[in-house]
Amino acid sequence: MLSPRTTEGARFVELAERHAADFAATAAEHDRDASFPFEHVEAMKQSGAIGATVPADLGGIGVASVHDLAVGLSRLGQGDGSITIGLCMHFMAGWMLARRWQVLRERGQPGGPDAALKEMAAGKLVMAILNSESGSDNRHPFAEAKPVEGGYLLNGKKSFATLSPAATTASIRVRLDDGNGGYQTASATVPIDAPGFESLHNWDALGMRASGSHDVVLRDVFVPKEALSTPVRWGRLEQPGLVGSVAAATCLAAPFLGIAEAAHQAAIDTVAVRGKQPGPTPLREWGPAQSAVAESEVELSAMRGALDRATAMIDALFAARFPADPPEAELHALMKECQAAKLIVNKGAVSVVDRALAISGGSGYLAKSPLSRLYRDVRAGGFMSPFGELEAREYIARVALGLPPEG
Amino acid sequence: MLSPRTTEGARFVELAERHAADFAATAAEHDRDASFPFEHVEAMKQSGAIGATVPADLGGIGVASVHDLAVGLSRLGQGDGSITIGLCMHFMAGWMLARRWQVLRERGQPGGPDAALKEMAAGKLVMAILNSESGSDNRHPFAEAKPVEGGYLLNGKKSFATLSPAATTASIRVRLDDGNGGYQTASATVPIDAPGFESLHNWDALGMRASGSHDVVLRDVFVPKEALSTPVRWGRLEQPGLVGSVAAATCLAAPFLGIAEAAHQAAIDTVAVRGKQPGPTPLREWGPAQSAVAESEVELSAMRGALDRATAMIDALFAARFPADPPEAELHALMKECQAAKLIVNKGAVSVVDRALAISGGSGYLAKSPLSRLYRDVRAGGFMSPFGELEAREYIARVALGLPPEG
Amino acid sequence: MLSPRTTEGARFVELAERHAADFAATAAEHDRDASFPFEHVEAMKQSGAIGATVPADLGGIGVASVHDLAVGLSRLGQGDGSITIGLCMHFMAGWMLARRWQVLRERGQPGGPDAALKEMAAGKLVMAILNSESGSDNRHPFAEAKPVEGGYLLNGKKSFATLSPAATTASIRVRLDDGNGGYQTASATVPIDAPGFESLHNWDALGMRASGSHDVVLRDVFVPKEALSTPVRWGRLEQPGLVGSVAAATCLAAPFLGIAEAAHQAAIDTVAVRGKQPGPTPLREWGPAQSAVAESEVELSAMRGALDRATAMIDALFAARFPADPPEAELHALMKECQAAKLIVNKGAVSVVDRALAISGGSGYLAKSPLSRLYRDVRAGGFMSPFGELEAREYIARVALGLPPEG
Amino acid sequence: MLSPRTTEGARFVELAERHAADFAATAAEHDRDASFPFEHVEAMKQSGAIGATVPADLGGIGVASVHDLAVGLSRLGQGDGSITIGLCMHFMAGWMLARRWQVLRERGQPGGPDAALKEMAAGKLVMAILNSESGSDNRHPFAEAKPVEGGYLLNGKKSFATLSPAATTASIRVRLDDGNGGYQTASATVPIDAPGFESLHNWDALGMRASGSHDVVLRDVFVPKEALSTPVRWGRLEQPGLVGSVAAATCLAAPFLGIAEAAHQAAIDTVAVRGKQPGPTPLREWGPAQSAVAESEVELSAMRGALDRATAMIDALFAARFPADPPEAELHALMKECQAAKLIVNKGAVSVVDRALAISGGSGYLAKSPLSRLYRDVRAGGFMSPFGELEAREYIARVALGLPPEG
Repeated sequence: MLSPRTTEGARFVELAERHAADFAATAAEHDRDASFPFEHVEAMKQSGAIGATVPADLGGIGVASVHDLAVGLSRLGQGDGSITIGLCMHFMAGWMLARRWQVLRERGQPGGPDAALKEMAAGKLVMAILNSESGSDNRHPFAEAKPVEGGYLLNGKKSFATLSPAATTASIRVRLDDGNGGYQTASATVPIDAPGFESLHNWDALGMRASGSHDVVLRDVFVPKEALSTPVRWGRLEQPGLVGSVAAATCLAAPFLGIAEAAHQAAIDTVAVRGKQPGPTPLREWGPAQSAVAESEVELSAMRGALDRATAMIDALFAARFPADPPEAELHALMKECQAAKLIVNKGAVSVVDRALAISGGSGYLAKSPLSRLYRDVRAGGFMSPFGELEAREYIARVALGLPPEG
Repeated sequence: MLSPRTTEGARFVELAERHAADFAATAAEHDRDASFPFEHVEAMKQSGAIGATVPADLGGIGVASVHDLAVGLSRLGQGDGSITIGLCMHFMAGWMLARRWQVLRERGQPGGPDAALKEMAAGKLVMAILNSESGSDNRHPFAEAKPVEGGYLLNGKKSFATLSPAATTASIRVRLDDGNGGYQTASATVPIDAPGFESLHNWDALGMRASGSHDVVLRDVFVPKEALSTPVRWGRLEQPGLVGSVAAATCLAAPFLGIAEAAHQAAIDTVAVRGKQPGPTPLREWGPAQSAVAESEVELSAMRGALDRATAMIDALFAARFPADPPEAELHALMKECQAAKLIVNKGAVSVVDRALAISGGSGYLAKSPLSRLYRDVRAGGFMSPFGELEAREYIARVALGLPPEG
Repeated sequence: MLSPRTTEGARFVELAERHAADFAATAAEHDRDASFPFEHVEAMKQSGAIGATVPADLGGIGVASVHDLAVGLSRLGQGDGSITIGLCMHFMAGWMLARRWQVLRERGQPGGPDAALKEMAAGKLVMAILNSESGSDNRHPFAEAKPVEGGYLLNGKKSFATLSPAATTASIRVRLDDGNGGYQTASATVPIDAPGFESLHNWDALGMRASGSHDVVLRDVFVPKEALSTPVRWGRLEQPGLVGSVAAATCLAAPFLGIAEAAHQAAIDTVAVRGKQPGPTPLREWGPAQSAVAESEVELSAMRGALDRATAMIDALFAARFPADPPEAELHALMKECQAAKLIVNKGAVSVVDRALAISGGSGYLAKSPLSRLYRDVRAGGFMSPFGELEAREYIARVALGLPPEG
Repeated sequence: MLSPRTTEGARFVELAERHAADFAATAAEHDRDASFPFEHVEAMKQSGAIGATVPADLGGIGVASVHDLAVGLSRLGQGDGSITIGLCMHFMAGWMLARRWQVLRERGQPGGPDAALKEMAAGKLVMAILNSESGSDNRHPFAEAKPVEGGYLLNGKKSFATLSPAATTASIRVRLDDGNGGYQTASATVPIDAPGFESLHNWDALGMRASGSHDVVLRDVFVPKEALSTPVRWGRLEQPGLVGSVAAATCLAAPFLGIAEAAHQAAIDTVAVRGKQPGPTPLREWGPAQSAVAESEVELSAMRGALDRATAMIDALFAARFPADPPEAELHALMKECQAAKLIVNKGAVSVVDRALAISGGSGYLAKSPLSRLYRDVRAGGFMSPFGELEAREYIARVALGLPPEG
């Protein structure tokens, strides 16, 4: 398994392992009922894990390393991928807030998000990120922010509002008229109980069933001016925003490493103890079982190596440029590595779970088998933003070939 | 898609395509409820498809070609893999009865299964095959047949009693004391409503939810002497039985080709019509989508080619030796090809469905998407008898290396 | 291995097996020296194999089935891929001549290539096909045919003039001014000793070293009018020509199946006899060796199945439409299958040879090991006309999606 | 590309990049002639690179990090894999000497290899490692050391004596009678010009042709007692020796990463500049080329990540336990990761080079193309000690399953 590299990271990973054990105990039930695991969010407020990314000065654990955040998320994913994918959103939002706080402090500028971070550490701020929409990608939101007196009115429909049942606040990607017949994109921060914000409570999917990824309808939701982030050009992957996307790309892959690790452990446990029925040979001495175990070990090494290196590269580049943001060319070169790591993790995870089923034999195919849940959950990895599998390959090639990244 | 090679096969495939359209219409509902699609079995009795393998002289369609049987099963699998996998059992049992009938007729011997075949053509005999048990493989049944006056008493527990809700009769693999401290294996033919035969009605799995693959408990089920097949050594894959196993190996793979074909067609349909949002480029002109489509086309060609060739080899060998059974060495050489074809089909089918999901984007992951059902159904292929994926590789290697096949 | 389906095919395959044994005996030597195996072409003239495709009425073996031609070529490839790839060119040219002869005869038209076919059967006509050029693909030749009194003058440079050392005649793809600022493409039939035809005798490649695939320079080579085929549009894959391309696509893959079969047989032989040193376990009972053998067996089944099916589809379509050529849409649908089969064979062949090296251990890496030659030879498969690996995928996708095939 | 983590490593990598440029200039020539690149060994003596692992106190660069050693070797491999694989042997021997020196110094013990290390820094000691023998694996040497007055006489035959033409000294693995009917294994340090040490100068292989990996015959080669290392049990992978094997496993993979990086760069260069002939589309905007580039980028990320992580784990474990050797269980757990990384690098490297050929088109297949050399060189990776590909998988499985590692 991956190891944290910072003291704060080690503290988070330790908590993550503890919570993961609890996640595992309820995973089957929440999966069956598609119910949201509020109890685990509660427990993470109690343990302080919910404030993992909040600087220690503001009451949090102070995990600044994307690497260590990813390591912790992989551990949580071992327990239940579906609650973990929701928490990813919260932690990414928290990491970005903390980074802004640190940048402003370093520059001696006032106005940082102190209050929000303190609330987060206290468990009073839980953030969902509403980027996705049916029929478009994250760079091209159709939900609109129309300027009105003192702010904006938001209208539109978002999908995959993961973690929304437990969130107090949502970051919502919208587009704005740029005054020249085109659009800009920005994120609006909105209380989850704002008038006009309606969750359809309709999440019903193949897997990730406990993630609460409902559709949300926005009808004239008012947000004040300052609740909108600096806009970028519609359809572009550019700064500001690219820094967060880079971090998110790897953090959203981490839970799927955890899912694969859980499946492989189940396979190992099976092989270690079971006999190759009905004969006397223990399964662990049987060539084909060893061959399958080795294959998954090798795949896991590739997944861990790729994620380890990509996240360490993020930390290194951000540290080297801090408090500035790295130039866009460097961010795209980094994002290329992150997208490669994400593909490696997600393809590998599907393959490792598939092989765990082959090792388990027919009993793994029963609904009551944890493997049958992992098989469904693990397939979500390929759909994580900002690029699907097909788009990721195009992006990687374009950056490698020195072409404009967006195609 | 594969094409039939005989007139009778063409008739069966034509019917299969018609029934598959009806299967597709109810697949989502039966999957959700894990309900058994009795209406389709009924319709196949009406159409005569249920008697596909029954010789024309006895009122059936007369499909003797394993190739064409597999082609028809692949078409049925396009509609609903889960009812099709159940029908496989019935058709395999029917094919074996018909073969026996033909062999006996050719040899001029009396006592063939005329009556059973006529009943099958009339839709009054529907057969399930109960080979599997939890904790063993098909060659090592633990269910026992104990000799009593005039017959045997059967006791034990079978799993994966696919099609049993609609079956009138079950073929049940059991073991018998061989009088030397060892066992023999045989199959007992039992009416499904025999005293002591109890279905637990507990099938609840990741996929194949409409297949009715319940557990069955046998408590002192009496069968007359003649209801037991000629015994072979426990644990051996040998004659008689190997002929049927060879045919079954490929027929049990065919529905998974159909599942993959259905998923790929859905992907093609998506790519053909959808725009690459939000821009003006049609998705079909987008490199990564073309690349994914090509990959699945190539995989499907391998799957079709392997299944086509293996089943044609079966037909050729059986015809060359008819009415004798081929020697065991030839059957194992043939079985090696069949197991290879089955692996190619099953691994390819998982991969094609996975890629269809990648092409579809996130909407394919919703519970209501047909692809999310196909993703669950397709994974059952690897568990089909008599060899799981791991065992199949060992078997193939042993035959290729001239070693005793059973390891 | 694949089996022929016609009597003539069986005769050709039998001869091919005999010649292949001789090929194998000299393969190392011709590979080392990059010398041309004239002795084998001679022997095939003696045996009559050189006239495989010539109708029996004209003195040949009469193989009309593309399937059986491919089967024979796979056998020859087992002996020496590099002479076989040269023979492919001759046999394809011969097959096309024979098809024209049969079509004309069926239609009752005079003027068929009787004389050429008789010469071919007598071993006096050996044909090379000069389609390739450095810096372009086969559909876009730069070599030019300029009209002059009574015929044309050819100028240009061709590469990969495989078999040219033994050929008496070359079919050379050229372009012609179409009078509208564009070009047409046609093939010119030219004696290999025509004035202005110069082979550079410079073939020196990674593998296929005995294929004599020299560069050829054409300087004002005169051909009479009737030596030019009916032109098609430059850059298009269309009729006439598509019929031959379809057949060629699979026949050019067949030798690589043979190469893989030879490598796998070497691996099997190693595993069957060698001990797992230094212990007493025979290598054949060692799990990882069995696992590797099984993997290659499965891959070979996919390769054989795909090639078997694609070539049988060619025979079936051509027979169904005979004496007409199939419509272009049907030819493209068929070509899609052929290209898929070619990819499956070529990728699989590289993989099987690679695995044979892994099984052999370090000794296979020595220059004197046949495997090290097979490793070099097998990689040529991906470069065979008319599509490289990358283009093949695009073509397959375009046909599958109903787009114009050429992109 | 991978980055060094220590200052000494950075210095070595910088030198490595400079030497690699020179390697590249002569790679084709040495490959063609199978000549040994003495000039590059000379140049590395001049630059000091030859003493990379020698502590700075003794005149070397002081690279103690296995990670950074591997990074430097990957850079050298970009220039010429075949001289690099030879240098691996020297650097591994040097790293082990340096480690012993540091351990002894830390423990305050006298008798360290000061002199040898100083000679190495001065370019007067170049070491080859002669472990391999035809017909056995590295753990089971047949070459024997027989005790005589004051030392031992060595007899036997070693193969793959890589770097031996430039080496001054060889470390030779031998076996000794253990007095109980069994054997022990040890390494003897022998001057390359010792009486009875004869190189057959017969290296002639598929690739790695400039590595000088000749066979060596030992006839009564005398070595003094102290020239023999502490023996371990014959056939075991145990301490002492396991520490070095762990480091060697990754360092022997690193050059193959470099080979793949060179091939991929050639592919990128091709795609970046070439047009898709004959049309106006630049190749870099062509979907299939982008798809292939992305595939290799992803594969390289997996290879780099796995190697980066495995070597960092080596450094971390050795540092944590220093000056003690880690316990064997920890070393095996680490070796499992190293073997996985090696498989990932070697399989990935073969695949990346293969794809570079597909991208290059037919010109890459010519003997004069650098890709055709890389294709041959890269295949050696799978044969590197102490485990071939098949054995590596068994080892990984056994460690993962808690079984005795040697099988």
